[in-house]
Amino acid sequence: MKEAQSWFLQAQGFDDALIARDGSNFLTGNGYLGVRGTLDPWRADRYPAITVSDTYDMADGRWRELCTVPNGLYASLHDEAGRALLDAVSPDVLTRTLDLRDGVLRHDYAPPAEDAPRITVQRFASLGDLHLVVTHLSLHAPEGGRFTLDAGIDTHVWSLNGNHFARMEPLAHDADGTALDGPLLGVACRTVERGTQIEVREGLRIDAENGATFETQALPFEGDDGRLLRRVTLDFPAGATVHVTRAFAVTTSNDVDPATDVVGDPAAAAEASVTRALEAGWDALHGAQRAAWDAFWAVSDVQIEGEDDAQCALRFGIYQNRLATPAHSDRLPIGARGLSCQAYQGAAFWDQETYNLDVFLHTHPEVARNLLTYRWRTLNGAREKAKRLGYEGAYYAWISGDDGEELCPDWFFREVITGREIRNHFNDQQIHVSPDIAVTIREYLDATGDEAFLIEHGAEIVFEVARFLASRVSWIPHRKRYEIHRVLGPDEYHEFVDDNAFTNHQARHALRFALDVRDVLKRSAPHRLAELDATLDVTPEEVDAWRHVAENLHCPEPDPATHRIEQFRDYFTLEDVRPADLKARLLDPSEYWGWPIGVAVHTQVLKQADVLQLLVQDVDTPRETLEANYAYYEPRTQHGSSLSPSVHAIAAARLGLAGDAHRYFMKSALVDLEGDFKAVSGGTFIGGVHTAACAGTWQAAVYGFGGLRVHPDRLEIDPLLPEGWTRLRYAAMRHGQRVWVTVTPDQVSVTADEANMHPVPLDVSDQRFDLAPGATQDVAGATRKSHEGGRA
Amino acid sequence: MKEAQSWFLQAQGFDDALIARDGSNFLTGNGYLGVRGTLDPWRADRYPAITVSDTYDMADGRWRELCTVPNGLYASLHDEAGRALLDAVSPDVLTRTLDLRDGVLRHDYAPPAEDAPRITVQRFASLGDLHLVVTHLSLHAPEGGRFTLDAGIDTHVWSLNGNHFARMEPLAHDADGTALDGPLLGVACRTVERGTQIEVREGLRIDAENGATFETQALPFEGDDGRLLRRVTLDFPAGATVHVTRAFAVTTSNDVDPATDVVGDPAAAAEASVTRALEAGWDALHGAQRAAWDAFWAVSDVQIEGEDDAQCALRFGIYQNRLATPAHSDRLPIGARGLSCQAYQGAAFWDQETYNLDVFLHTHPEVARNLLTYRWRTLNGAREKAKRLGYEGAYYAWISGDDGEELCPDWFFREVITGREIRNHFNDQQIHVSPDIAVTIREYLDATGDEAFLIEHGAEIVFEVARFLASRVSWIPHRKRYEIHRVLGPDEYHEFVDDNAFTNHQARHALRFALDVRDVLKRSAPHRLAELDATLDVTPEEVDAWRHVAENLHCPEPDPATHRIEQFRDYFTLEDVRPADLKARLLDPSEYWGWPIGVAVHTQVLKQADVLQLLVQDVDTPRETLEANYAYYEPRTQHGSSLSPSVHAIAAARLGLAGDAHRYFMKSALVDLEGDFKAVSGGTFIGGVHTAACAGTWQAAVYGFGGLRVHPDRLEIDPLLPEGWTRLRYAAMRHGQRVWVTVTPDQVSVTADEANMHPVPLDVSDQRFDLAPGATQDVAGATRKSHEGGRA
Repeated sequence: MKEAQSWFLQAQGFDDALIARDGSNFLTGNGYLGVRGTLDPWRADRYPAITVSDTYDMADGRWRELCTVPNGLYASLHDEAGRALLDAVSPDVLTRTLDLRDGVLRHDYAPPAEDAPRITVQRFASLGDLHLVVTHLSLHAPEGGRFTLDAGIDTHVWSLNGNHFARMEPLAHDADGTALDGPLLGVACRTVERGTQIEVREGLRIDAENGATFETQALPFEGDDGRLLRRVTLDFPAGATVHVTRAFAVTTSNDVDPATDVVGDPAAAAEASVTRALEAGWDALHGAQRAAWDAFWAVSDVQIEGEDDAQCALRFGIYQNRLATPAHSDRLPIGARGLSCQAYQGAAFWDQETYNLDVFLHTHPEVARNLLTYRWRTLNGAREKAKRLGYEGAYYAWISGDDGEELCPDWFFREVITGREIRNHFNDQQIHVSPDIAVTIREYLDATGDEAFLIEHGAEIVFEVARFLASRVSWIPHRKRYEIHRVLGPDEYHEFVDDNAFTNHQARHALRFALDVRDVLKRSAPHRLAELDATLDVTPEEVDAWRHVAENLHCPEPDPATHRIEQFRDYFTLEDVRPADLKARLLDPSEYWGWPIGVAVHTQVLKQADVLQLLVQDVDTPRETLEANYAYYEPRTQHGSSLSPSVHAIAAARLGLAGDAHRYFMKSALVDLEGDFKAVSGGTFIGGVHTAACAGTWQAAVYGFGGLRVHPDRLEIDPLLPEGWTRLRYAAMRHGQRVWVTVTPDQVSVTADEANMHPVPLDVSDQRFDLAPGATQDVAGATRKSHEGGRA
Repeated sequence: MKEAQSWFLQAQGFDDALIARDGSNFLTGNGYLGVRGTLDPWRADRYPAITVSDTYDMADGRWRELCTVPNGLYASLHDEAGRALLDAVSPDVLTRTLDLRDGVLRHDYAPPAEDAPRITVQRFASLGDLHLVVTHLSLHAPEGGRFTLDAGIDTHVWSLNGNHFARMEPLAHDADGTALDGPLLGVACRTVERGTQIEVREGLRIDAENGATFETQALPFEGDDGRLLRRVTLDFPAGATVHVTRAFAVTTSNDVDPATDVVGDPAAAAEASVTRALEAGWDALHGAQRAAWDAFWAVSDVQIEGEDDAQCALRFGIYQNRLATPAHSDRLPIGARGLSCQAYQGAAFWDQETYNLDVFLHTHPEVARNLLTYRWRTLNGAREKAKRLGYEGAYYAWISGDDGEELCPDWFFREVITGREIRNHFNDQQIHVSPDIAVTIREYLDATGDEAFLIEHGAEIVFEVARFLASRVSWIPHRKRYEIHRVLGPDEYHEFVDDNAFTNHQARHALRFALDVRDVLKRSAPHRLAELDATLDVTPEEVDAWRHVAENLHCPEPDPATHRIEQFRDYFTLEDVRPADLKARLLDPSEYWGWPIGVAVHTQVLKQADVLQLLVQDVDTPRETLEANYAYYEPRTQHGSSLSPSVHAIAAARLGLAGDAHRYFMKSALVDLEGDFKAVSGGTFIGGVHTAACAGTWQAAVYGFGGLRVHPDRLEIDPLLPEGWTRLRYAAMRHGQRVWVTVTPDQVSVTADEANMHPVPLDVSDQRFDLAPGATQDVAGATRKSHEGGRA
């Protein structure tokens, strides 16, 4: 049972206060669409949503976001007394269970009275047919009776920023809304800005047992009501059971066959998908779903023995990271809230490369490649942004949708005291996203050895990022160095800063990498290099300029005495207070802490890991540097971003501070499950799943406790187990060769996958191995002991 | 009478609502001290103040400001019924008159009843003995009677930012506060921060007529009460008159004899000053005062015939500019509020060079030299500021006191809605003050030809400013130019801007001037140049760097199509609204409009002339450029700074828009007299005389209507008279040669002063003259007609 428990997310009843959070946490999805974990009869006011990737549209003239489509899950079930059975949310009736193994969400309605009808509704978003969502309702009536099921499509959707549908037309109904005959219900939509065609089809199949009978009748459609329904009247003898399998499919005119790039007929495709599903039936569909998820978990699972809560929360993170990821496509981003809602516009932040992608680097590198190819496909958007802001090359959007255009509005939050809109500079000062992408390409190369990608796509990104950076720096004659002014680092509370350590170091990494990539291409693909140089108009003088910047860019270094790196120029002169002090200064609990008049702006309190982010990303950071900066920055960090705790967990684990590491690991793991992150900040809905934190939890487990560090020439395994953990197991990759790492308190055991082609160079506890395919190496005593020094 | 009226500021009664403003407007003073125009019996709650130059001190750990010293004017007069006669402020009793001719403030108390006593109190701050303030009280009692005069020193002073006196000891009193014998009252003070010794002495002399008698008695001093008094009991037969002449003197341990640099004994000096004055008596003292002011007005007066109000307001400006100016010293600044109160810390802003100093350039160039020498004496403060902020050379303080240290606190205003302090960047982004000073030295040279000053003091300033600018610019490789980032131009509503047109052009002017100055010194004073280069460590490479910056600094130029100059980068992309629109957005009328969340920040509304300031300072601005930018910026300017209207007046006059020019001239002239500028903004007292506006009014008259433009090689006179003005007369200077310009609607008449040594090259209406000493040239038809185009 222990093993099984650590795969389930379970709750009794449904607490209205948690409606925004639970709808996200109990998400089902597949990277194409996400279905919020709400109940079937719920309508727009309770935040149900089916959020579909690749449907960017702007309805309010300001925010371009993904569409939430008509809800084909809608169903209500009444008994003869008119009781709404699926609306029962009291804890003694309703149990909700999300099975992370196969992505099936199950709602069990079991009233205390033994003779009451028992209902189970199961739901999943298919991993095999990405357009398909299947539900299975089983109704068992010990006393028999008559029940009425109204099932179909609710066209009234919850949408954050305006109504996206210029046209939403119910099918199989005539002009006055009366239903016509036909096996499926359907809605054809066209979006308001881009005219994207979105088709929703829904059908059902009833399997009645033990003499139950049913009758189906179409209901008239009334626009004001918005529900397109059929009514099924079920007559039960005592003890009978009825199974209603429903399928609905969503397709859009943006769908392409990834193999052929062919755009199909969305209406026909949706119809076919539903028809196929209903023919196959629940058991077959569910079986295929389980097989698909099994294949995913086979390489993606990170196993923790000794702490079920940690195990379950970590799996939740891996699960959600998968749901958020459009693994099927190389044209789409991972949204900061995935497909759990429209917040943050379903678009990629730096989170995609810095957080989400690492999981795939070591489990499904082809997905990592897709994500980076997406950045290549959106180069023009980045070029346009650079040009618009007076720079050259690729200045990636802070919030990037399907075409790389900057989706981050100039005005994001509203200052709650004055009610005035805030001009945050997320979209024009957070330049580090561009070098972050370049640096991630380097990491992708280390993990996969995929030079073909570099040649085909990566090099172009890297050169355009270098070009951007060289155009963004300032040469300060009297200091004889380049500086980068007016930026916003990862710590978003401090805008308009100069020489942010993270940004400048990332920029130098990216510039150096560009020079390295030129060398690689010179050797491996000189024609491609020539072609790129010609297309991009890269001259030898320009490459010299990149080199000059790389060699002369001011990168804040550790102070020789204190080992501290100053987060940005003059940071150390700011008021030195702690987050708790600032909390006491708030005039309103929902105030934004940052720019321009938030409580943190003129203090050293930071929103999230910034210098630590830099140090943790660098596998060669000296211990004293990490130690000094962890000691300095950790107490000053508010963790106002969900990205922050995992970085702290990794840092603490590297320092041997198992208590801190575990605390931050759990903080990251529980961001969504137990966190009190606000659903609305400064008047803007920012609820939904924190996908970067989900992936960050994986990093905390694998890079932190697992001690995985990817060097250019080898993997290093330097683990630390927190108290109570008896075993940790994960997969890792180097140059496309997979290894399995098992850590116990006594030893580290590394097995090279049977399918590997080459030996894997490996450091464990200062011992170096070249691990042949299929081979296993055990190193006793390689698991570090907790070293709780000054901090715990 | 018309002529005389235009010399008087007069008011009936004293309106409590205007207490802050009238106390400033009715100021008497002499550049060493200022005496607010309050009534003699008033105490600290009604803002009397004697503000003394060169007494910088910090009492609150935050603001260094001038001290207000014990009030030696204090007097109260009671009749037998106990009525406080000097407290009468009703308009039918009290008439207040400030005579601008001699700086005498007169309070006449004339109750309606014919038999009531009549009192006149006159007061002036001596222009001959800067430490001395003299009052003369005449009491005439038609019915006779007994009166009690309590006169002496009130030690309880109004001080903006803390009590500056660590010690304040009444003299001639024994330990229990009982008065001892002695002719004078006195207080010895020591300031809290710097320990400056400040001595105040007061004495009186009574001349009784027609049989009046008096008796004097010292009163005990009580610390809580704070008044150090003597009581004079006056017995009057009917129709008698008594004259009480009082003198008080303030001296400090900072006083130096400007000729000898000797610091005297302040106590002895104060005593001697009072004793001398009492011996001389009122008539002699007043005669000397009038003679001193006559000499001032002989060259300083700008005469307007045809509009008495304009004439009077202009003279008020010239008067106040003189009161604010420490003409006697080359060690002291002109405060933004002069000596009218402690606001703005009695310290110099860019106003000093850009506004106040021009008057002296053309009337008392030796005062202009003193002011510039003050900048030389404070070079070390400017060097320290540069160093502290990471630059080189001289980065002049935004608010500069006696030693050039930056007095502008980081936190200036308080945001009124949230109550949070605002981190304005007046002190670290308003870099234009440094080039402004350098450019003013160039103007000083044009007016005076004083190469000796350049060699002795000016060149060092100019080189250090060039060095600062070269260290402050950024070279942007991909634009192949220098830019100046993160500045605050004259328009203070927009902080953190890049390439502010005013700042960059001024910087280029200053750099080019530095190169010119090197050429001048190479020719005229090669040894001094060598000495300076050695002392300052200026190398040929550094001079090349200055040249490179001067040649490659991006200076926003007029758009070829619209002729508009963008105030700073992307200014034109800001919301385009008008000041009235913003006023409607205010949540609180006392909100600061600027940084960080004021209503103007994200709009094109500007606080004050910025591009226009630049264009007006340049005597060669093409008409179409001035026209286009006046048309664009004028409606967007809020005139939240009192510096703004005069610039608009000059621009409008140049454009021939006599109506606009007159309106802005009067707006500048009436800033203090009728303006509604707040005495308190964002919780900070900023009341007092707007000395820059006072001097700006002179500029509007002389540079605007008078059409005076100083070219390097000549003076140009291109006047325009507004409707109703029949004559305008002013003095001007070129290379130390004075000319007198008289403008009438029909002709311009220029007379070279008899005392001149050289002819003055002169352009009037496209005619060029070399005007010999004593010669007069009349040019008929040279006065432009109003050209009210699209705007009026």
